[in-house]
Amino acid sequence: MGGDLGPRATVQGAALALAANPALDIFLFGPEQRLAVELDALPRRLARHGARLTLCHSPHEIDQAMRPSAALRAPRDTSMAMMLECVARGRADAGVSAGNTGALMALARRELGMVAGIPRPAISTAIPTRRGGHCYLLDLGANVDASAARLVDFARLGEAMARRIDGLAAPRVALLNVGVEGTKGPASVREADARLRDWAGLDYRGFVEGGDIFAGEVDVVVCDGFVGNAVLKASEGLARLLVERVQRVFETRWSGRLVATLARPALRRLKSELDPVRYNGASLLGLKGIVVKSHGGASAEGFAYAVARAVEEGRRKLPGHLEQALGGSTAPGGGSAIVSAAGDRDDSGIGIR
Amino acid sequence: MGGDLGPRATVQGAALALAANPALDIFLFGPEQRLAVELDALPRRLARHGARLTLCHSPHEIDQAMRPSAALRAPRDTSMAMMLECVARGRADAGVSAGNTGALMALARRELGMVAGIPRPAISTAIPTRRGGHCYLLDLGANVDASAARLVDFARLGEAMARRIDGLAAPRVALLNVGVEGTKGPASVREADARLRDWAGLDYRGFVEGGDIFAGEVDVVVCDGFVGNAVLKASEGLARLLVERVQRVFETRWSGRLVATLARPALRRLKSELDPVRYNGASLLGLKGIVVKSHGGASAEGFAYAVARAVEEGRRKLPGHLEQALGGSTAPGGGSAIVSAAGDRDDSGIGIR
Repeated sequence: MGGDLGPRATVQGAALALAANPALDIFLFGPEQRLAVELDALPRRLARHGARLTLCHSPHEIDQAMRPSAALRAPRDTSMAMMLECVARGRADAGVSAGNTGALMALARRELGMVAGIPRPAISTAIPTRRGGHCYLLDLGANVDASAARLVDFARLGEAMARRIDGLAAPRVALLNVGVEGTKGPASVREADARLRDWAGLDYRGFVEGGDIFAGEVDVVVCDGFVGNAVLKASEGLARLLVERVQRVFETRWSGRLVATLARPALRRLKSELDPVRYNGASLLGLKGIVVKSHGGASAEGFAYAVARAVEEGRRKLPGHLEQALGGSTAPGGGSAIVSAAGDRDDSGIGIR
Repeated sequence: MGGDLGPRATVQGAALALAANPALDIFLFGPEQRLAVELDALPRRLARHGARLTLCHSPHEIDQAMRPSAALRAPRDTSMAMMLECVARGRADAGVSAGNTGALMALARRELGMVAGIPRPAISTAIPTRRGGHCYLLDLGANVDASAARLVDFARLGEAMARRIDGLAAPRVALLNVGVEGTKGPASVREADARLRDWAGLDYRGFVEGGDIFAGEVDVVVCDGFVGNAVLKASEGLARLLVERVQRVFETRWSGRLVATLARPALRRLKSELDPVRYNGASLLGLKGIVVKSHGGASAEGFAYAVARAVEEGRRKLPGHLEQALGGSTAPGGGSAIVSAAGDRDDSGIGIR
């Protein structure tokens, strides 16, 4: 039920995800009648995948403006809480939501639990780099005023994700700072730097500056949630401004406007690439289960990408590996959330609201 | 002597600034012989402005990697220290440097002094917005872990600058946060929010998120130096990536490459617009004098822009107004740094290293 466009984008996005992956099944949570309207409105090419969409009626919703504490007091039959419960019970391998991020974090923590030592989920997304690859940036808003210990946790989570999801043997990890010299930055960042240097086996690259996130020289960049959130949202804003200006340049400069017309699809693709959360979703890491947050402003395509991300994390059994990386006891691949109702299938049963 | 390109960019940039402004005189600080070589190398169209360039020999330099504490112990005859002394003595109305930022802040503070209550300079630059205007972002790296009181100082400095330099009657001021609700963010930010709400006469717009810096809805965005630095550098990195990708799209897509050739100057201009520090310079605010930092990677054009910024701040007698805004006693227009040797001329005598 979340997202600026309401259930239309999520239902269409779910159908797109099904069309792209024949092994996928999706549960949709929300008021049955509203979801049914959206299912009926699916274009024909998507409607035929509807058989793999299961409607799960939930009478209530988590409001976009609701505070996490209020979300925790809300009835258990909101679409968000029911989706998370479905993941927690192992009926689905992963959950995706385009709703209220703070509420999602709080409810996911309650329903799924955290892996060893992590107080609350970190949020991470894959940022495109100049080399054509991507770089995981975390945290993105969940943990304001992060201590050195939390920054080290983020490094462990990000490193394990890059290993597991991208298959990197030795992900390059860096800490965001205002300069590359060891004497710069707040105490928490300098202390985290010292701890990461002591971590044997980590390919730690020391400090990087904001611009280095896009340079392609590192695979994971760690910062506190305030900074990460500001950087990510500023990047979204700048990408929007830049694409608008490029478009305007073409549209005003050549009277025939042929060039502008030719350029439009390329610019659109570029905009998508550079708006990673809107198009790829963001992972909530440190939970004993998989939850991916789709951007509130995501289109159906954006929501489908978030589902694909969740499928990939399920297929790679990410939570068990994160738990292992954090020194927990659960074996990789374990954890109730990724055991699907149908047994050991890898990529079936995505809970979606 | 600063900047990645060394004195060539600064000497050429100074000459460009002179060409653009017939009322301007410039002092150049550095080893006389190296500056003379660059003066001789000036293209003819710029060489004729050389008469208004005065070489001031300084035997030493501040190294790019030198820590501020080391810069304070360095001999007094470095180009940076001599330039600042020239401003402090009122021989020049403003100073511009492309050198080591930390050293520049420390030396400027020592040579010029601070206006009432400001412990060290804040750094600010004008960020382009979607509406075609700009927004001042501060702080950009000088003040890590800023308290609520410092954030309020930044708001006062930014507001006074937007009033004085841009002639705005009521600049719209906002605080950067991870959400727009009052309950979000670290304690220092929430405390600053409460204080700004109590400030009568301020057009305070509350919290904004990273993307809003570019939206054009506010004139001043305030944050601590760590966040501002990360956001600014990430924006620079993203702008570079984006312009590269747009260029590649055009170069690979149309085999004739005519479009790419046509697009190149427009893209170059766009890149300049979106790399504000490199092209416009950043102001050190809170000093009893005018100091503008040009980006280390600035071209001659970028350095000339930084000089133009310094001229404008001198013409508008910015430090006196900032002092007044901060509750100091100096009358607007006062302060030794903006009284030039030649009397009360408004825009003459820019000290440059």
